[in-house]
Amino acid sequence: MAIITLTTDFGERDHFAGATKGAIYTELPDVKIVDISHSISPFSIPEAAYIILNAYSSFPKGTIHIIGVDSELNDENKHIAVKLDGHYFICANNGIMSMICAEIAPEKIVEINIHDKIVTSFPVLDVFVKVACHIARGGTLEVVGKVVHTIKPIKNINPFVNDDQTQIIGHIIYIDNYGNVISNIKQPFFEKIQRGRAFEISARNKRFNKIYNRYSDIIDFSKAPEDRHIEGQRMVVFNASGYIEIAVYKSNPNTTGSASSLLGLGLMDTVTVNFLD
Amino acid sequence: MAIITLTTDFGERDHFAGATKGAIYTELPDVKIVDISHSISPFSIPEAAYIILNAYSSFPKGTIHIIGVDSELNDENKHIAVKLDGHYFICANNGIMSMICAEIAPEKIVEINIHDKIVTSFPVLDVFVKVACHIARGGTLEVVGKVVHTIKPIKNINPFVNDDQTQIIGHIIYIDNYGNVISNIKQPFFEKIQRGRAFEISARNKRFNKIYNRYSDIIDFSKAPEDRHIEGQRMVVFNASGYIEIAVYKSNPNTTGSASSLLGLGLMDTVTVNFLD
Amino acid sequence: MAIITLTTDFGERDHFAGATKGAIYTELPDVKIVDISHSISPFSIPEAAYIILNAYSSFPKGTIHIIGVDSELNDENKHIAVKLDGHYFICANNGIMSMICAEIAPEKIVEINIHDKIVTSFPVLDVFVKVACHIARGGTLEVVGKVVHTIKPIKNINPFVNDDQTQIIGHIIYIDNYGNVISNIKQPFFEKIQRGRAFEISARNKRFNKIYNRYSDIIDFSKAPEDRHIEGQRMVVFNASGYIEIAVYKSNPNTTGSASSLLGLGLMDTVTVNFLD
Repeated sequence: MAIITLTTDFGERDHFAGATKGAIYTELPDVKIVDISHSISPFSIPEAAYIILNAYSSFPKGTIHIIGVDSELNDENKHIAVKLDGHYFICANNGIMSMICAEIAPEKIVEINIHDKIVTSFPVLDVFVKVACHIARGGTLEVVGKVVHTIKPIKNINPFVNDDQTQIIGHIIYIDNYGNVISNIKQPFFEKIQRGRAFEISARNKRFNKIYNRYSDIIDFSKAPEDRHIEGQRMVVFNASGYIEIAVYKSNPNTTGSASSLLGLGLMDTVTVNFLD
Repeated sequence: MAIITLTTDFGERDHFAGATKGAIYTELPDVKIVDISHSISPFSIPEAAYIILNAYSSFPKGTIHIIGVDSELNDENKHIAVKLDGHYFICANNGIMSMICAEIAPEKIVEINIHDKIVTSFPVLDVFVKVACHIARGGTLEVVGKVVHTIKPIKNINPFVNDDQTQIIGHIIYIDNYGNVISNIKQPFFEKIQRGRAFEISARNKRFNKIYNRYSDIIDFSKAPEDRHIEGQRMVVFNASGYIEIAVYKSNPNTTGSASSLLGLGLMDTVTVNFLD
Repeated sequence: MAIITLTTDFGERDHFAGATKGAIYTELPDVKIVDISHSISPFSIPEAAYIILNAYSSFPKGTIHIIGVDSELNDENKHIAVKLDGHYFICANNGIMSMICAEIAPEKIVEINIHDKIVTSFPVLDVFVKVACHIARGGTLEVVGKVVHTIKPIKNINPFVNDDQTQIIGHIIYIDNYGNVISNIKQPFFEKIQRGRAFEISARNKRFNKIYNRYSDIIDFSKAPEDRHIEGQRMVVFNASGYIEIAVYKSNPNTTGSASSLLGLGLMDTVTVNFLD
């Protein structure tokens, strides 16, 4: 039996996530439901896009992902179901899928048309659950929607490269639980433009000229622990998802501060890479 | 095998929810456990009552709902198990069940009497799990308690209507993840008193004379998106659970503000409907 | 099929917990995954140690506990798998296991050596999941690591007793969801030193000379509820896990305040017991 995952901005307290799980089990007692996140910032399409992109591929092929962010149906916000990389995604056509689709071409997209005339302000429960259970039972996308060929993009998901390839201008697309700030510049793209050149990364008034592969790589093990003074040190890493990330070593946003708070970096702020010939 | 749901004020960090789930699986390896919420505000009976009322009916009949809020046993706070609408509820007799019972008559209520003499400050783990597993195995309520016929009420769960039916006085019973404020006035009740009359809803110094069926209904699609200026606009809707809700379109309490913060509305504040003849 | 639990500092929003669950289900579709907590404070080893100690034993023997806190592999932070009390624990050798191991001797400890040469900054996904699934399939610890005989301690996990046994000096090891502050002084240890003597517990400038067994024990039921004035009252209890805890009756950290906020008590602050002969 398939897995259905949930990624929403319902929060941890309200009844919405619980009700959704109840409705799924009512239709399919043997399905597995996995919460990816219910703490997406309200209506944040970029956050939802980043989370689902970086979570989905750990699940088995055939998994069905419900994304409940800004999903109220209206003339400009249609519901879609997408098959991509062997996975199924059910969400509003509001840009959430554009980050995944920029990396992997969808196999099929349908605009969901099972809605009856009843207006609903809880489409995850009233529509997405029905579509997910239909797919979990082996149903095809064509039964629940009409095939379309494009999805709505979101702006600025790709970094910009200047004509003579001396500069990449990216921006911050996510701030994680540790307060580390994550740019939209991925390692393969960076290395393709870099061609081995030295570089300087700048964000606000900070400069970096090295990218680590993991946080521990800034530790100088030849020094005694009490002489290292690395807690709170700023660094750039390729994070586990392959993005250039500005981090603070062992940061805790609630106590020591984080890359976001200490460097004053927020969503959509610019991260620039200048290559030195 | 049955589903057991959990609704508590344990929070997301402590070990209480994990320990409870472990204890259930130790007794019943094949049961399904569903978290409804562990983020009820500490000791908030109205919040717990609202959440369980609006979540339970999405689950299949036969589901067992453990509610762990203000549940320490003492002479004035007995433990009860309630069968209602084909579902089972296990909680303290502290008012949590009164909101559900105001809508649907319980089939059976028992005061749990399986407690031995050991005092415990973790009754969810030590008592509620045992009762839930007993029910999940097909056991009857009479085995774990003695039948009683009333439950403890909470005050002010129903709105007040004046004698000549020109006014409903309700109050705010819940503030959701988006900061929208939810009154205790439900659509069927409202419409029964309204009898088609025009009306004015007031909360603090704000007035509304229209109730939408979904948030998107305030969009004027004849205008270009950049000319609409609706983000942050105040509105009243019948929410997905049927309550009159004062909302702010696409609100985010952490950034743009919400109905609660922008209108200065908190729990138990008054919402008044005046009908205009 | 076994249960795999997750205790991490990933937070509720990021994709890390979801990705970890997806990876486990990809390897073992029939395993049960239980979230204990993803809200450990970032890099907080004492918090993780307290949570896992107090959650694990409610689970059935054979359960596999993944602890993802400060788990990046480096020369001074090796990965270990521990068998103890019939349970399995997979984590970094950073002190997290020392609180459990102080109570129950481990049956076996191995230092995990299945790492290939690929550096990874997401060891929970890349290493711990593999080890957990190996154990869940019935594999032995020796296949994934080499046996070692000690684990890294954390400081100050045990309270100090003076030579003439008139004083216990403990400290605060955890602050729970209700803001109650929990010391490292457990009931059996306390009673062994006490030998029936009267005592005074002090924390900051507050003094207590009674320890309750549950919160309700401070209620004087002979008084009418409106004459009791106990909400917000300070008290000491042996909590559900057996620790001396300084509590505020029915506290809510967000509204009325809590033991931590009202008494100004934080992690590692001193709690002293003086015995009166």
